[in-house]
Amino acid sequence: MSSNSPQLLKGFRDFGPDKMSARLVMLEKIRKSFERFGFAPMETPVLEYEKTLTGKYGAEEKLMYRFSDQGGRAVAMRYDLTVPLARFYTTNKETLPKPFKRYAIGPVWRAENTQKGRFREFYQCDVDVVGSSSAIADAESIAAIYAALKDLGLQSVTIRINNRKIIQGILEVIGVDGKKTVSVLRFLDKIDKQGEGKVKKLLEQDGMSSGQVKDLFDYLQLSASESKGLQDNFSRLMLENKNLAEGIGELSDVLDALYGMGVTTYTVDLKLARGLDYYTGTVCEMVLSELPNFGSIAGGGRYNNLIGTVSGGKEKIPAVGMSIGIDRLIVALEDLDLIKYDSTQDVLVFNLDEDKLGTYLGIVTGLRRGGVNADLYYKTDSIDKQFKYADSKKINLAVIIGEDEIKKGIVTIKNLATRKQWSVKSNKLLEEIKKSL
Amino acid sequence: MSSNSPQLLKGFRDFGPDKMSARLVMLEKIRKSFERFGFAPMETPVLEYEKTLTGKYGAEEKLMYRFSDQGGRAVAMRYDLTVPLARFYTTNKETLPKPFKRYAIGPVWRAENTQKGRFREFYQCDVDVVGSSSAIADAESIAAIYAALKDLGLQSVTIRINNRKIIQGILEVIGVDGKKTVSVLRFLDKIDKQGEGKVKKLLEQDGMSSGQVKDLFDYLQLSASESKGLQDNFSRLMLENKNLAEGIGELSDVLDALYGMGVTTYTVDLKLARGLDYYTGTVCEMVLSELPNFGSIAGGGRYNNLIGTVSGGKEKIPAVGMSIGIDRLIVALEDLDLIKYDSTQDVLVFNLDEDKLGTYLGIVTGLRRGGVNADLYYKTDSIDKQFKYADSKKINLAVIIGEDEIKKGIVTIKNLATRKQWSVKSNKLLEEIKKSL
Repeated sequence: MSSNSPQLLKGFRDFGPDKMSARLVMLEKIRKSFERFGFAPMETPVLEYEKTLTGKYGAEEKLMYRFSDQGGRAVAMRYDLTVPLARFYTTNKETLPKPFKRYAIGPVWRAENTQKGRFREFYQCDVDVVGSSSAIADAESIAAIYAALKDLGLQSVTIRINNRKIIQGILEVIGVDGKKTVSVLRFLDKIDKQGEGKVKKLLEQDGMSSGQVKDLFDYLQLSASESKGLQDNFSRLMLENKNLAEGIGELSDVLDALYGMGVTTYTVDLKLARGLDYYTGTVCEMVLSELPNFGSIAGGGRYNNLIGTVSGGKEKIPAVGMSIGIDRLIVALEDLDLIKYDSTQDVLVFNLDEDKLGTYLGIVTGLRRGGVNADLYYKTDSIDKQFKYADSKKINLAVIIGEDEIKKGIVTIKNLATRKQWSVKSNKLLEEIKKSL
Repeated sequence: MSSNSPQLLKGFRDFGPDKMSARLVMLEKIRKSFERFGFAPMETPVLEYEKTLTGKYGAEEKLMYRFSDQGGRAVAMRYDLTVPLARFYTTNKETLPKPFKRYAIGPVWRAENTQKGRFREFYQCDVDVVGSSSAIADAESIAAIYAALKDLGLQSVTIRINNRKIIQGILEVIGVDGKKTVSVLRFLDKIDKQGEGKVKKLLEQDGMSSGQVKDLFDYLQLSASESKGLQDNFSRLMLENKNLAEGIGELSDVLDALYGMGVTTYTVDLKLARGLDYYTGTVCEMVLSELPNFGSIAGGGRYNNLIGTVSGGKEKIPAVGMSIGIDRLIVALEDLDLIKYDSTQDVLVFNLDEDKLGTYLGIVTGLRRGGVNADLYYKTDSIDKQFKYADSKKINLAVIIGEDEIKKGIVTIKNLATRKQWSVKSNKLLEEIKKSL
């Protein structure tokens, strides 16, 4: 490659035909799963006013792509799909169903550190329910994502679930200042990556006493796999502390609703915090038992304040949502050999005689009109070159018509995988091809 | 709306569930048409190095969104799907099929004048063939777009077609300086919007004599509906001028190939120039006979120099492509009443008794697992509110289960459009719903 030749930007990717075909199949499965759960599709622009997006995501916000447009407006590229949803809901709420259940699938942009293997342009697939505080909304968001992952062939998805009010309640019970909650949640979110020991140290540096840190982790250790056990564990503290009572109550309701939807592979993990500042209750992430070190492939939670903040009004609008990071997921599916790089192409009509171009064009047109993905080799060329072309496009069937075939009114079909070759009457070609696909 | 509430950027649009569902159906039809013609899917990033994109589009380039990223790189947002294809091809050509036939569907960004009703973010749906100068490639690109428009229900698409070499040849024959070709093409492109009289004046102001302008338009008036007539009209000049001979020859071959593919609704229009500087031969656009004043809904042409320019190398790589502007197309389809705003949702399970939540969750889960798009009303609420919710989501079927139904082991189904209501055994619900969709 010459130094003049154009480059991809670091952290950005092209998807050529093989990868793109696989992505489209995946996205379509995800889409269908989301629609089965009552979520309807939506799309917002890639650019928003900068002030709509800033102040919502916490410290990571410095990764946002921002600039001044031709009209001098401060604009920013979509950083996630949730804040644009909040903006959309605010301006359209009078005409939307209540609750409003939507899904969105599209790229977002963050100027991540590429040395950690992160991408700067990546797809999110989100479901959200806006305008309901029902625990069924939380459970449905989780169940929709879970069903999508199952449809993609993932058999061992574990759902880790918690409610931030429980952490907040415990902090109150052990006497930690309420202003510290945000930073404590951020530290807890680092447990998976940095380990519990490190996080305990960070919490002490942040001003908690070693006794408080010990108490916090003793409480966070308590757990249970169903709502009854959870309530038993915290029955005394729930009487003392409102946040704990609410958190345990909400979490129990979500677990019950999940159970009602036939989703049972969840684990309550009271240490789970999630990274985004805007979560107010339920937090959830999904991991693969087969790839324990891979980290989460989906996550989300309840955010009852975000939409009010974005709208700038006083009304509080409850909302909950979950998101699949499709690019990480693809890496996982590749690791598990669950991704198929199939061709979108079925048939190549060979071009063996330039005088027969009219015949070839007629054949390929007939196949296309019959719904077959068919290609014609443009030039009369050696049969080897044409086989090579079919191979490069992963085409399975060759349609071969030479002098002999035309005389007999037949067509030769060759399966390029099995090398099997046979002939049929010309007028039976479409039927035969459809049988062979 | 308070002045604090967040706004959409001018020229940008949200697509709520109704519009988005219709767009997805359209895009899927277009996708399938493109695949039938042997084009494979591809996607490139939204951001590119600015220098990759600049210098390719002509005067309109000032509409490109450009900025400096966090790493100080000069970047630009995708302005069309063709130049990124050229960049992709340059870096990947060793591993790609030859010719490389790809389609791409995605948004592009141009800071257009919104007062003319133009959008700043709009979708393009492109097919391109890279690495072949065969006229079949031109014809296939045109035929694929034409088939997609037919699949969308458009019955009266007219294909206007020309070859820029013919215009260039005529200019040479009448003694216009070759350096003027680019500006003459740009003026000719304004005929539809500004009229022939105005364009003639502009050409004279640009330095052509009134005699030359008259001669030019006399030649451009000549036409023919098939290749034989075209060659007869220009037989003498073709002997004199190489560009004319090539242009007429290429155009004839494309018409013959189109005819071979069963596409016959084309008109040769020698005045057709198209706006982009990079076209070198075939140019084409499609208009709707039912909406003659609407302008073109698709267009494209051959660009044999662009990829070489982008690669910065000396190799010349022939290419041809066509593009549908989906946003203009949707307006046309709406005008012709050809767009359906269907719901993605089939069923609402009513919530009439909070003690029966487990039953409702079981029912909605069973429907979803059976492949039905099903929603559950979250709260026990008045039946009127639940009908209203179903209506707001354009849901057709209600599943109603009260005390009476549970006692009898049945389920009541109500068609919300016809108001018809009937009951079935609980275990026959899925079957019955699938019949009723």
